[in-house]
Amino acid sequence: MGIVVVGTVAFDTVETPFGRGENVLGGSATYFSTSASFFTDVSLVAVVGEDFPEEHVRFLRSRDIDVSGLACIPGKTFHWTGRYGYDLNEAQTLDTQLNVLTQFRPDLPEAYREADYLFLANIDPDLQLEVLDQVRHPRLVACDTMNFWISSKPEALKKVLQRVDMVVINEGEARQFTGEANLVKAARQIVSLGCKRLVVKRGEYGVLMFTASSIFAAPAYPLEEVFDPTGAGDTFAGGMMGYLANTGNLSDEGIRQSIVFGSVMASFNVEDFSLNRLKSLDYREIEERYRTFRSMTHFEGLDG
Amino acid sequence: MGIVVVGTVAFDTVETPFGRGENVLGGSATYFSTSASFFTDVSLVAVVGEDFPEEHVRFLRSRDIDVSGLACIPGKTFHWTGRYGYDLNEAQTLDTQLNVLTQFRPDLPEAYREADYLFLANIDPDLQLEVLDQVRHPRLVACDTMNFWISSKPEALKKVLQRVDMVVINEGEARQFTGEANLVKAARQIVSLGCKRLVVKRGEYGVLMFTASSIFAAPAYPLEEVFDPTGAGDTFAGGMMGYLANTGNLSDEGIRQSIVFGSVMASFNVEDFSLNRLKSLDYREIEERYRTFRSMTHFEGLDG
Repeated sequence: MGIVVVGTVAFDTVETPFGRGENVLGGSATYFSTSASFFTDVSLVAVVGEDFPEEHVRFLRSRDIDVSGLACIPGKTFHWTGRYGYDLNEAQTLDTQLNVLTQFRPDLPEAYREADYLFLANIDPDLQLEVLDQVRHPRLVACDTMNFWISSKPEALKKVLQRVDMVVINEGEARQFTGEANLVKAARQIVSLGCKRLVVKRGEYGVLMFTASSIFAAPAYPLEEVFDPTGAGDTFAGGMMGYLANTGNLSDEGIRQSIVFGSVMASFNVEDFSLNRLKSLDYREIEERYRTFRSMTHFEGLDG
Repeated sequence: MGIVVVGTVAFDTVETPFGRGENVLGGSATYFSTSASFFTDVSLVAVVGEDFPEEHVRFLRSRDIDVSGLACIPGKTFHWTGRYGYDLNEAQTLDTQLNVLTQFRPDLPEAYREADYLFLANIDPDLQLEVLDQVRHPRLVACDTMNFWISSKPEALKKVLQRVDMVVINEGEARQFTGEANLVKAARQIVSLGCKRLVVKRGEYGVLMFTASSIFAAPAYPLEEVFDPTGAGDTFAGGMMGYLANTGNLSDEGIRQSIVFGSVMASFNVEDFSLNRLKSLDYREIEERYRTFRSMTHFEGLDG
């Protein structure tokens, strides 16, 4: 069993200085699973309403994503509306219609409970804990969260962090969770809670991974055009875990490489609205950009 | 002949959330030359007033810095007063007393005109052009500038950029100079003016170096305590050029390594007020932190 991701499948309405996407396909599980599908088998657990078009399900299936965990229940699909200014690092949420998401109680199909890799996308930490109880012996579990849960359910969130191998959050969330302005101190505090690795996303400034004894810094790919940052974090996580599940290499070097593959995937995703860029992407482009990351960061042992 | 730096020697009064330094030793040429002195011979061209204490000159001499280009003229030494908030990336200037700096017309001692490496620290671009006319056949010339010159003397500055090998400026300045919000586009524009390499400083997010055909990204060293960012940029440039002058290796790999040594020096400098941390630094610490940078950034060919 490859990767299982539990998260959201949604409609997004997004405005950036470069355009507008209305009711486009979005959601954390959507971005994650599409990104991971370039590397390995991935199964999705999420809920949608009756208004969710068959066309989107067909797209997920076309990526070989197992959608048997995608529940369709009466009501409307989760809808997020947001806007980005010229500082594309942070979204401003204009409207959140949870709709069927309020009834989401993830119940993993039997086969999913044998997952080797589990990604708990940004949902209620109490639900993340329920999912953790259902999965039997994963090799690696990672989770995401957001400011809303940090302020409303810090205790449940703390329990989640203690039970996962890897936490993937953004810089502001790391600071908010610990109340510590210095990122290194904030990171040390989170790692000391019990998660082995903390991956801090910094938007256009890349990613820092902290363990108890080391730090790894990966830049973001410097892009001349960023159209829509929506889903970049989940696309990053999908690339990272997809690569890990594909290689099975959980050494420090293997995990670093997975972070670079995650960064590569995120860099493609922001080049167009919704999942449009991932839809046209092929694996050779991914490999080529990975090599560019290497030539962009290494300063010893370069080829020529 | 090693490095010649033309810039300022100053008194700084600096306030950060962690303390205050009053009338401490500062100035671009001071930070640059002290940092470079860990790697190579460096000669300084600057001006001070009669109030400049012999003790500071003794300090520079103790670092084997050639101060025969340090003019002492009637009047008071340049004095900068600034403040940093919790966001230590940007200083707020509270007061600037140029004093003797208004009479600064760099006239290089004959021996200095044979410099192999020249750093034009942040001064009036017209003066930078005068210095360029005096130096005969440097192997590498780099320059810095600031927002004030970008808005008041863009044409002179453009001429400087066309005559140097390397421009070292911060992110906001690159955007301001080109009027381009996207950093990659801004960088491409500056490189196309004629300088071969553009080094963009991004504070706690590290450094990006652009050439016409490549990008190199170096993170900043993640510090748990940053006391005073004053002089970090000049300390960076001093470490970078000091290393280059020491090795003479101007290959792409050599220049990348010099950027990492520059980042190492800057990371030490911000750990204490004024030049206090550089005063206590020894070369083994520099080498050790360089190795940490390597282990922090490489994701292939790690030792273990």
